Amino acid sequence: MPLKKIADHIAFRDDKLGKVNLFETPRFFCDLYCLKSGQSQHPHTHGAEDKIYQVISGRVIFADGELEIAGEPGDLVHCPAGALHGVRNDSEEDAVLLVFMAPHPGANRFPAS
Amino acid sequence: MPLKKIADHIAFRDDKLGKVNLFETPRFFCDLYCLKSGQSQHPHTHGAEDKIYQVISGRVIFADGELEIAGEPGDLVHCPAGALHGVRNDSEEDAVLLVFMAPHPGANRFPAS
Repeated sequence: MPLKKIADHIAFRDDKLGKVNLFETPRFFCDLYCLKSGQSQHPHTHGAEDKIYQVISGRVIFADGELEIAGEPGDLVHCPAGALHGVRNDSEEDAVLLVFMAPHPGANRFPAS
Repeated sequence: MPLKKIADHIAFRDDKLGKVNLFETPRFFCDLYCLKSGQSQHPHTHGAEDKIYQVISGRVIFADGELEIAGEPGDLVHCPAGALHGVRNDSEEDAVLLVFMAPHPGANRFPAS
């Protein structure tokens, strides 16, 4: 029953948003996305996976190609399988998101159980 | 791309811990668990689903039948498929958890897509 503290795993990068895996199995992954000012994840889709973005700190803009929605700490956004989604940090402050995806898009790289 | 604010959905019950679904598909669910002082989810297992507990507010004790681990805001616990897990609020304050499970244990009640 491993426990991880979000604050212990936050890691920003200068060249692009920092992604830090916390937990993963073939059934899901749970990552931290660490976005400095100006960094983004461009809108994209996953054919068969659902994603949840949760804002841990900072302010971001979620975009689905049509709508743009402002997110602040305590907000969760559901990006269903097949739906376009992306996020960017237009603010001047760092932002941290917790990201859940199910199932794991790389499930076939796990050993068969 | 629906957005929900955790604070808008917190709902405690007097008789047992309050569970509030935020998002669900056959691939996952995301719930709030709202535990008043003394309330708990008894240790149990899911044969084929992974769970993540995230402490949003308050202090709780995670238990897997052998270990007991204290959780505070910002902590995440991974309960792998097949592993015993439970949580209780022994503190005098309310506690709120965000819970992710993948896949959804009731996936067969969703319409075929």
